[in-house]
Amino acid sequence: MAEYSVASLERLIEQFERLPGIGHKSAVRLAYYVLSMKESEAEKFADSIIDAHKKIHYCKICCNLTDKDVCSICADENRDRSIICVVQDPKDVTTFERTKELNATYHVLHGLLSPLNGCTPDMLHTKELLQRLNNDEVKEVIMAMDGTVEGEATSIYLSKLIKPLGIKVTRLAYGIPVGADLQYTDEITLSRSLELRTEI
Amino acid sequence: MAEYSVASLERLIEQFERLPGIGHKSAVRLAYYVLSMKESEAEKFADSIIDAHKKIHYCKICCNLTDKDVCSICADENRDRSIICVVQDPKDVTTFERTKELNATYHVLHGLLSPLNGCTPDMLHTKELLQRLNNDEVKEVIMAMDGTVEGEATSIYLSKLIKPLGIKVTRLAYGIPVGADLQYTDEITLSRSLELRTEI
Repeated sequence: MAEYSVASLERLIEQFERLPGIGHKSAVRLAYYVLSMKESEAEKFADSIIDAHKKIHYCKICCNLTDKDVCSICADENRDRSIICVVQDPKDVTTFERTKELNATYHVLHGLLSPLNGCTPDMLHTKELLQRLNNDEVKEVIMAMDGTVEGEATSIYLSKLIKPLGIKVTRLAYGIPVGADLQYTDEITLSRSLELRTEI
Repeated sequence: MAEYSVASLERLIEQFERLPGIGHKSAVRLAYYVLSMKESEAEKFADSIIDAHKKIHYCKICCNLTDKDVCSICADENRDRSIICVVQDPKDVTTFERTKELNATYHVLHGLLSPLNGCTPDMLHTKELLQRLNNDEVKEVIMAMDGTVEGEATSIYLSKLIKPLGIKVTRLAYGIPVGADLQYTDEITLSRSLELRTEI
């Protein structure tokens, strides 16, 4: 009894399975969905993958993703160039932009220091950051990394490089999330929020 | 303050969002993952979409998906051609093949009767099924549809067309799933399993 299989379908399922968070069952569902699309739709999907890959590269100033020479934030003349917000990856830029609080520029490291995972200082885009600090314009660098050990280590490493240049280095405040239930907040977060308590 | 956006990235995210079960956050994650792939990997992904779409079509005998003229099951000489198992869609063929119980051929309807959703008899591949029944070889047609109202309706509709040809029409047994907890089994399933009770 020969097994039923369709090579091109198997290949498509395999490709979907490689994506993060997509298991075999989801991959099968997605592959069948792609087959049910109109041919023009499937071509559009495939094109968008190639297109994004071809056109998107790092902004030559802040290392964020862009399809131009310089990203739209670095190109924006209304941005305050005296503040640079340093983040781990491009997703974080989008997250900060959603708050509409920060009219600064960004610098994307594309990673955090993590010697155990093989991520060393020379693999982060710190050289580009230090080059940007060489002109007088920058007054403050905000370390906006994850509240993890790696985020902490990266903040400290960078601040040691930047402080000697006479530039103010700040970090995001630790504290309880807005709307949080105190009984579910861990002790370290609580003690940090006590340290940083503000007057009402 | 200009908003940060990268057109090709937005397009890629949009494309992922159209897939079933993929929300905005997953689409963003997948798009960034695609960007992080090597160029050759991304090309392979895009190619597999186009390729599957170009090469896969319906088997001219059973309407299952195949990249050949006739699918590997219909082409298999060891299959019992006297039994045809009628299923809703290609995924069901794979499901039955996994049981390794059925050495028959299949027929894929690509849908179930559902007048409310606009699926009428002429939209199912019943014409091809009836043509297959015109030779003397077929002795039994198994209705292997979902246990839903639509599955039921399709089974009854087809059996009314097939019985007059003097061919045996059977259906999957209703009953409790293996390993099921009786207290969570609905009454209709329970009464059906009582009706079909077998001697030990």
